[in-house]
Amino acid sequence: MRGHDRFFSNNAGVMESLQNHAEEQQYSFSKHSSWPNNQESTNNCKPRVGGFVLVHAGAGYHSESKAKEYKHVCKRACQQAVEQLKAGALAVEAVAAALVELEDSPFTNAGMGSNLNLSGEIECDASIMEGKSLHYGAVGAISGIKNPVLVANRLLSEAQKGKLSAGRIPPCFLVGRGAHDWAISHGVPPCPSEKMATKFSLSAYKRNKRKMELAEKMDTGHNQTKRRRQSSGNENGSECLDTVGAVVVDLQGNVAAAVSSGGLAMKHPGRIGQAAHYGCGCWAENARNMNPYSTAVSTSGCGEHLIRTMLARECSAAMQSEDSHQALLEAMQNMFIMEFLWSHTTESMCVGYMSAQDSKAKTHISRLPPGTIPGQSLAIEGGVCRLMSTVD
Amino acid sequence: MRGHDRFFSNNAGVMESLQNHAEEQQYSFSKHSSWPNNQESTNNCKPRVGGFVLVHAGAGYHSESKAKEYKHVCKRACQQAVEQLKAGALAVEAVAAALVELEDSPFTNAGMGSNLNLSGEIECDASIMEGKSLHYGAVGAISGIKNPVLVANRLLSEAQKGKLSAGRIPPCFLVGRGAHDWAISHGVPPCPSEKMATKFSLSAYKRNKRKMELAEKMDTGHNQTKRRRQSSGNENGSECLDTVGAVVVDLQGNVAAAVSSGGLAMKHPGRIGQAAHYGCGCWAENARNMNPYSTAVSTSGCGEHLIRTMLARECSAAMQSEDSHQALLEAMQNMFIMEFLWSHTTESMCVGYMSAQDSKAKTHISRLPPGTIPGQSLAIEGGVCRLMSTVD
Repeated sequence: MRGHDRFFSNNAGVMESLQNHAEEQQYSFSKHSSWPNNQESTNNCKPRVGGFVLVHAGAGYHSESKAKEYKHVCKRACQQAVEQLKAGALAVEAVAAALVELEDSPFTNAGMGSNLNLSGEIECDASIMEGKSLHYGAVGAISGIKNPVLVANRLLSEAQKGKLSAGRIPPCFLVGRGAHDWAISHGVPPCPSEKMATKFSLSAYKRNKRKMELAEKMDTGHNQTKRRRQSSGNENGSECLDTVGAVVVDLQGNVAAAVSSGGLAMKHPGRIGQAAHYGCGCWAENARNMNPYSTAVSTSGCGEHLIRTMLARECSAAMQSEDSHQALLEAMQNMFIMEFLWSHTTESMCVGYMSAQDSKAKTHISRLPPGTIPGQSLAIEGGVCRLMSTVD
Repeated sequence: MRGHDRFFSNNAGVMESLQNHAEEQQYSFSKHSSWPNNQESTNNCKPRVGGFVLVHAGAGYHSESKAKEYKHVCKRACQQAVEQLKAGALAVEAVAAALVELEDSPFTNAGMGSNLNLSGEIECDASIMEGKSLHYGAVGAISGIKNPVLVANRLLSEAQKGKLSAGRIPPCFLVGRGAHDWAISHGVPPCPSEKMATKFSLSAYKRNKRKMELAEKMDTGHNQTKRRRQSSGNENGSECLDTVGAVVVDLQGNVAAAVSSGGLAMKHPGRIGQAAHYGCGCWAENARNMNPYSTAVSTSGCGEHLIRTMLARECSAAMQSEDSHQALLEAMQNMFIMEFLWSHTTESMCVGYMSAQDSKAKTHISRLPPGTIPGQSLAIEGGVCRLMSTVD
């Protein structure tokens, strides 16, 4: 793991007055809860929380010179999501809107400007999960589509419609050429691959190619194991930026999470990273019987490591634990409280967040303390957000 | 879930005398254990258990007329694995050998004779996991390769060698054309797609195609939701056979699991099923600190449902629980005891199993009781096997 961010949403603060109106059990709460019940809402009104979005532009290294760009794109992504929320969109739609903004930026490693693979092509991974239905959609190694997250989202929504003709089960994960063709046949516009590469991604490809050729030339004559160990230095290379992602809670308290990635630079064609892996790239789960909190998680970092740890799902489970439960209860007052966290072991990570009552997004580039070594140190930051409770 | 098989290996019986010699902590055991310690092995000898393999030819419907074929292929697969084990192969190599045999049979939905997709092509998924290293390899939607499990196994072994030139991280999951090209460049022989289709799979394709066209014609004018609900009847269709798989424990007590599948008939090109999904198709975990038992699991059934439940990993975790723990302790004597289970909700499932001290494999077609409805009833069967403990 090189970095990940976590998001913790709790809509349980006004449970006692709202329980009778809970849809999908999303406001049910465990026996631990005991807090003041002085909401303005009455038993006859449907609860509305304010909505919230947290985005990140990928773990990795964010140069000071580009800091402004990263903050801008995080801000735009937050604003897109909040606009959707205010217009009544569900969490899953709002999180997709945030991701589109992140994918469209040529500065992130997702959609436009993604890393090129070994053959000089762009192949993207993306996935999205809805906490209410636990439905999931993912695409892997997809080419020629500007916004892979929209294909993932379409897979999710198509699957919710039920079976296909002759009883066939709709797919939730499509890859490669088949994913591309499915997208086109479902109205997602194609985008010529050459338009998705940027000056920056092309020059990074050339530089990486030279570096690889040099490394392989130098290693001739050494045994394979030795060669590999010797040349393992540039994992935290300066051009390395990872999966982008977002987590959202909508006005009804539903959560959703999504991630999108161009994958590792110089990856083998067809390589699937954690952004397309169920339970690894993102996780979203509304509060229900066994889970007192709604949780949404988006991970970013080295795919192969994140897959093995099933990081997103593990984080989600950890957030249900007694410890974080207690900590949150102490901070809890008479409003909807959300706790959000991000952490990374990479040099830096750019995040943005915004609630529906904010007029603009807050952005931040989190960095490891000076003098610490990326991969060996950990930065954890976060905050608590009180959402206004309104009544229809 | 339409069916799955489970495998439960416990090498803890002689823990007290072996603990000092444990490699990778695979013989460490929890505080619950208390059993006789009357092994022949001494503190100076490395333990060897007898080795065991359990295979299945896929959940689904096995006609009486083909029962003989399914039993034969299960038998051959067991024998291949046991021969490897006796020759000193590790669990991961033996499980791959069993899978090759299952894939090579034209009667299983894996490798040769796989279901054709919507375009009339064969695209296979396969994955393999080693309990000792927890390493994992997977391929998805791969065409033109007779034995997808060998590509998955090669990905696993290549990743264990460490990083690639210029510090690149080796892939653990490759799909589509990229997976095919990687296989060829690593010495796996290609196989023309037309050679992988069988008379049976081609005629099933034509039949399905007609059925689909008919269903779509009949539904013209109905709204989409209605159309889908109406035509959802053939999920347990007679030609439907699922993922094949195997679980193995080797002479050192290591476990491994693997699965391989041609996927759903008439699936969309590029669709990835549970056989290629980490934690969904197979799981293998040697006993270590927190896990008193070595476990290996292989699942078979409807991919989309198995992915959501992360069935393989969940089964593995469940087998560590107090209940099965207690049950096993009661059955425990002074030998290595293995418990193995299979269960299915489909009409039938063909399994085979064999330990290294057996001269031939046992095979069995498990069926739901007469009069019960597939998908609504569950059959659970299994057994206990005592493995001889020998000393080098």
